[in-house]
Amino acid sequence: MVTLSFSQLENIFKRNRQALNEFKGIITPVIENAKDDHERLYWHHIYEEEDHRHDRLDHLLPALNSINENESPISPDSSEFVHLLQDISLEKFGLHNFLEHLDLSLYTFKDTELEEPIRSLRDMTAADYEETKQLLEQLNEDFKGTLQYNASVPTDEKEDIDENLKIDAYTSSKSEAPANKNINEFTKRKQLTVGSLKK
Amino acid sequence: MVTLSFSQLENIFKRNRQALNEFKGIITPVIENAKDDHERLYWHHIYEEEDHRHDRLDHLLPALNSINENESPISPDSSEFVHLLQDISLEKFGLHNFLEHLDLSLYTFKDTELEEPIRSLRDMTAADYEETKQLLEQLNEDFKGTLQYNASVPTDEKEDIDENLKIDAYTSSKSEAPANKNINEFTKRKQLTVGSLKK
Repeated sequence: MVTLSFSQLENIFKRNRQALNEFKGIITPVIENAKDDHERLYWHHIYEEEDHRHDRLDHLLPALNSINENESPISPDSSEFVHLLQDISLEKFGLHNFLEHLDLSLYTFKDTELEEPIRSLRDMTAADYEETKQLLEQLNEDFKGTLQYNASVPTDEKEDIDENLKIDAYTSSKSEAPANKNINEFTKRKQLTVGSLKK
Repeated sequence: MVTLSFSQLENIFKRNRQALNEFKGIITPVIENAKDDHERLYWHHIYEEEDHRHDRLDHLLPALNSINENESPISPDSSEFVHLLQDISLEKFGLHNFLEHLDLSLYTFKDTELEEPIRSLRDMTAADYEETKQLLEQLNEDFKGTLQYNASVPTDEKEDIDENLKIDAYTSSKSEAPANKNINEFTKRKQLTVGSLKK
């Protein structure tokens, strides 16, 4: 069961490392041709966060692969194991964050030739994020009390956070790109009181 | 020497956790009063990343404090120690990332009542980032070969990255908010070739 989970996680993160590379390629000319410093910083900032995530995945993937290939047996009681789960947990947040980068990009590139490739990365990442969450929940059941999740839960999924700081699209497992929404939906929601937004 | 570094790092991260809380407070009404879903997602995204960093610091600071109070001696040869340094290294990147969040905010809030408090957080963070870099370099000298820096270097400071993907303000240690720059500087820079931008 555990080996299966690690193997699925390795596939997800490998696939997503490729996806983030594709995204970095898409926004590289956007940074280079930015119309001013503000726009340049905006896209540079997103690029840098994904570049950073790439470095983290380059560190994590060989460790996962080594377990999956049975090259380095790891004891569930070891601190190495706990740290590995923490690292996976951090990458769960990384997937959620990437989803938001893609959704932000969809606002900018809607109705351009970049919309389709970004949307395709977006839909794959949304599915991968949900699968990662389920795999981590499974690992949590298998190793009750071992996992430290406290730094991997997005604001959108925290219970003690005001609902008006969350984005509806990310609070359910069937996430749809916010840029898809009819503009009237937002206007309608703005007319509700903060209290009535709390579910 | 090592204890002194950990103590300085604890102070920096404590101070910066307070700074990020202040920043979260500043942008909360901005999220709540966003004019549309795009603007709302933009500020939510920044808020969420800082919220996530807060969770990480809540995890790291007690570990640093415990070392500084000599409550839990840690061997430099232990994997715990290596992971601690990796976590610190991750927070070094977190400080750089916060700096960019603040600089992005300065573009939006220039000439408003929010400019001064954001600029104050920005200058403090820029100084804290430089100090953290130096402390980590010192720790790296003390424990040669132990540190794994590969996931803590911002794109701006990587040698194998095209200069035209970096932001000048972050490539030297004397970083100034990009929003301070005269607009002509950007225009001037745009006229240079990519090759001539390489330092």
